[in-house]
Amino acid sequence: MTESQAESDMEVSAKTLGEMAARSTPLIRNHWYVAAWAEEISRTPLRREILEHDIVFYRTEDGLPVALQNRCPHRSFPLCRGSLQGDRIQCGYHGIEFNPDGSCAHVPQLKAAPGGLRIESYPLVEQGPFVWIWMGGAENVDHSKLVQQPWFTEPTWSHVKGYIYMRANYLGLHENLLDLSHFPYVHGAALGRPEHAEEQPTVRVEGNVVHSSVVHRNVAVAPKYMRATNLVQPVDRTSEQFVPSPAIHVGKAILEDASDPKKTHVRYIIHCPTPETLTTTHYFWAVARDQLVDDEEIDAESYAGASKAFNEDKEALEEIEALIARDRRAGFAERIIATDKGAVLMLRAFARMAEEES
Amino acid sequence: MTESQAESDMEVSAKTLGEMAARSTPLIRNHWYVAAWAEEISRTPLRREILEHDIVFYRTEDGLPVALQNRCPHRSFPLCRGSLQGDRIQCGYHGIEFNPDGSCAHVPQLKAAPGGLRIESYPLVEQGPFVWIWMGGAENVDHSKLVQQPWFTEPTWSHVKGYIYMRANYLGLHENLLDLSHFPYVHGAALGRPEHAEEQPTVRVEGNVVHSSVVHRNVAVAPKYMRATNLVQPVDRTSEQFVPSPAIHVGKAILEDASDPKKTHVRYIIHCPTPETLTTTHYFWAVARDQLVDDEEIDAESYAGASKAFNEDKEALEEIEALIARDRRAGFAERIIATDKGAVLMLRAFARMAEEES
Amino acid sequence: MTESQAESDMEVSAKTLGEMAARSTPLIRNHWYVAAWAEEISRTPLRREILEHDIVFYRTEDGLPVALQNRCPHRSFPLCRGSLQGDRIQCGYHGIEFNPDGSCAHVPQLKAAPGGLRIESYPLVEQGPFVWIWMGGAENVDHSKLVQQPWFTEPTWSHVKGYIYMRANYLGLHENLLDLSHFPYVHGAALGRPEHAEEQPTVRVEGNVVHSSVVHRNVAVAPKYMRATNLVQPVDRTSEQFVPSPAIHVGKAILEDASDPKKTHVRYIIHCPTPETLTTTHYFWAVARDQLVDDEEIDAESYAGASKAFNEDKEALEEIEALIARDRRAGFAERIIATDKGAVLMLRAFARMAEEES
Repeated sequence: MTESQAESDMEVSAKTLGEMAARSTPLIRNHWYVAAWAEEISRTPLRREILEHDIVFYRTEDGLPVALQNRCPHRSFPLCRGSLQGDRIQCGYHGIEFNPDGSCAHVPQLKAAPGGLRIESYPLVEQGPFVWIWMGGAENVDHSKLVQQPWFTEPTWSHVKGYIYMRANYLGLHENLLDLSHFPYVHGAALGRPEHAEEQPTVRVEGNVVHSSVVHRNVAVAPKYMRATNLVQPVDRTSEQFVPSPAIHVGKAILEDASDPKKTHVRYIIHCPTPETLTTTHYFWAVARDQLVDDEEIDAESYAGASKAFNEDKEALEEIEALIARDRRAGFAERIIATDKGAVLMLRAFARMAEEES
Repeated sequence: MTESQAESDMEVSAKTLGEMAARSTPLIRNHWYVAAWAEEISRTPLRREILEHDIVFYRTEDGLPVALQNRCPHRSFPLCRGSLQGDRIQCGYHGIEFNPDGSCAHVPQLKAAPGGLRIESYPLVEQGPFVWIWMGGAENVDHSKLVQQPWFTEPTWSHVKGYIYMRANYLGLHENLLDLSHFPYVHGAALGRPEHAEEQPTVRVEGNVVHSSVVHRNVAVAPKYMRATNLVQPVDRTSEQFVPSPAIHVGKAILEDASDPKKTHVRYIIHCPTPETLTTTHYFWAVARDQLVDDEEIDAESYAGASKAFNEDKEALEEIEALIARDRRAGFAERIIATDKGAVLMLRAFARMAEEES
Repeated sequence: MTESQAESDMEVSAKTLGEMAARSTPLIRNHWYVAAWAEEISRTPLRREILEHDIVFYRTEDGLPVALQNRCPHRSFPLCRGSLQGDRIQCGYHGIEFNPDGSCAHVPQLKAAPGGLRIESYPLVEQGPFVWIWMGGAENVDHSKLVQQPWFTEPTWSHVKGYIYMRANYLGLHENLLDLSHFPYVHGAALGRPEHAEEQPTVRVEGNVVHSSVVHRNVAVAPKYMRATNLVQPVDRTSEQFVPSPAIHVGKAILEDASDPKKTHVRYIIHCPTPETLTTTHYFWAVARDQLVDDEEIDAESYAGASKAFNEDKEALEEIEALIARDRRAGFAERIIATDKGAVLMLRAFARMAEEES
């Protein structure tokens, strides 16, 4: 790409800036977001703020996960500071009790349960390690929007996973994930290769879903991967991604033995940025593999590598968030370059989603 | 009360929500608030913010308490960082001196004292352990609004007292104090009894003063109270309260020997929430008794019990304040139930007081 | 001055309050501000916020100081977290490189450097220990506005200097410096003499530059000064100041031997308040002398004395800033007295400067 092409690309993009989701765009609610890892939800109430709602999670005596408004409708006391009474949660201020569906079960002072004293109950779906929450209101719930990920539930696969609390807007993480050209700079020699910075991913959009893919041929693979996959160096590596919603990036890495196309190894790398607020994000990530599924050493290597890299991203995104909060230079607007094509398409899709909800 | 009655009561109350004082209601100034305990004010300047005014307190050489605007009118330096020169306070920046009445006594640079260089002097009344401050302007001062409490000055009574800094709006504390149904949940078995949660206090309003009372018959009294009062178990306990202003709750607990009506023991429990700001409160409390007035062990028990309970209230109210500051769910409004009748009447009275001042 | 004169003076001044620069006045940009001490800028990027702009400083391989917008125009990453590549700075996120003039040198993803991807480069002038920055835009740069200070570069002079980070608006420091009547109160007996509080400086304004001077006759000089200057007690001390811009106070102290007018000793005391934001200030100060220039003990005494005094000013100004941020009393406005004449003239000059830029 020549400089004039780049300029031209930038100008085209600049015209459409108004149609891209930005930090001030209202949070997008009609999707399934990761609320917690399954094991985080227990008989001890868990408090977590999601899309600016204060929520309490617990399990019924039968083990079903529950998500309720963590705010008593009477005097705004956080229900998580109360206690579980069977399947109900009891407020720690005046003892009012609520059922898992949000209806009031008991008001001690009234010896009754007024129907109007209801709290929001959030639809949940538990699948493997993930507990997904629907933030768009129970009346709008759409199970077809749930991204199916069998590699997290089938016994021939195993995975590692982690959680990162990020003091940054979630859109920056989405952009980061679609643009691997930051690898050599943010992640250094451990992950980045010179070709990362110059690669041009193939990007397309279907409806509101952005797909991106890039192939690296004759790639040297780290020894740990060799052992796990039984591949012979060098390999061809294909990285595919798609972004079905603001709640999830699905990444798929395919290593192919250049000398034997039948030897193929797949990993799924899942990133789930769940906004806490417009400036803070719960970042859930998981990596699934279909080889050496019981190898704890591979687990440890996989976890350590991913955790290190994703925390480097977190640090970069927090630097940006802090700078934006302080720097007051007049007339500043971020510029886009050719490699942001995927990000631009994605932010346009998010802008359409936000527009539909408003 | 049946569920339909409760619902009906809630609906009636909901109609009048607009007339109740809320967290955003301007602070109510034309009353006497507790500014400090008498022993806090000395020849060392004390800084305290009251109703969003920065104030400095000290005593004259004759021991009279003084409250002045803690802000030099020249360059806004806090006078509390200066020094006392006799009965005057001298600013630590340019040496300007002010008299206890707020007039300027001396400007070193001018060798004179310009009459226009005046600061606000707040009327104070010292009675027993309390130093009361009038926040409505010296020109509006009304001594008839001071609540007389002889049990804090007469020698046949003794008392314990405490101070709690509370990161919460003061109205929540007022509501808390009028509704004893929170006892079993916030204070546990130490203070709460099952009947607390279900009791229906008798509530009435006279002018702007809410009165509330509730009687528990055949109550088992803690051994410590038995010793202090020489009562025979079980007793009847009457709890009476009235709220003459946003600055004070007067509680009176009467224990009567069911077998001998002449054996009666009284305690006064005084709560004085002085708003620092709309989200922080100075909470002064005191408990007075007319028996065993010299018994230090009773003092210690009385202090420990009250301090524990009132700090539990503080923690609950701070939880609520923090939640309200974060939770952004749309359309949320607190609901009221039948036992909030006293609180509703009180908040209406406060709303009328605020309206009169505006 | 009689009281009526003082009152009259205050009334006149009050009429013109609207024409004086205040805490909310926009920062004044078209001047040279001290950005850093020369030795602070090196081959390791230095981040500093100046007039609400986030800026990165470094030196080229030839040693020239560079000041660039510390915000990548692509994704707002702080460039100071990147690395130097020769004379360029490389962004630590996607590797984009910028030249010292702010032009883009390289975008790895494009193998090109789009002309539109430019960042702000700030004009700098390095003179002796000072690195000055022009904040009004390179197109408006005016070297004639730079205050020449040969006593910081000529070998017959020596100096000490320091830096204080101040959580206060910069105007308060300017006022402080023009009014020595605070000496006995803020600095105590070490610096203040009774006559300070009552002195009336001679003040005049030429264009937008305020000049102030005051003479103290028969002043007792501290032993350390005697040793440095070889003067005989008592001396006459003349303090002259001028304020050519919001960026600098130039103070000159002249000690004259009353018995021998040829014995004269001069010190320059330079104060450079560089606003970080409207509520925080970088305070650079330096003291130059023309005697005993190689005496390290005099250096140490000079540094210790100045550092102690200027930190006392910082503490006073931070007290004021904190008070203003909290105290909400209605209708408060600072009053001025006769000794504020210099400050009033200066604040009017600053108001004119701000008005010209708006």
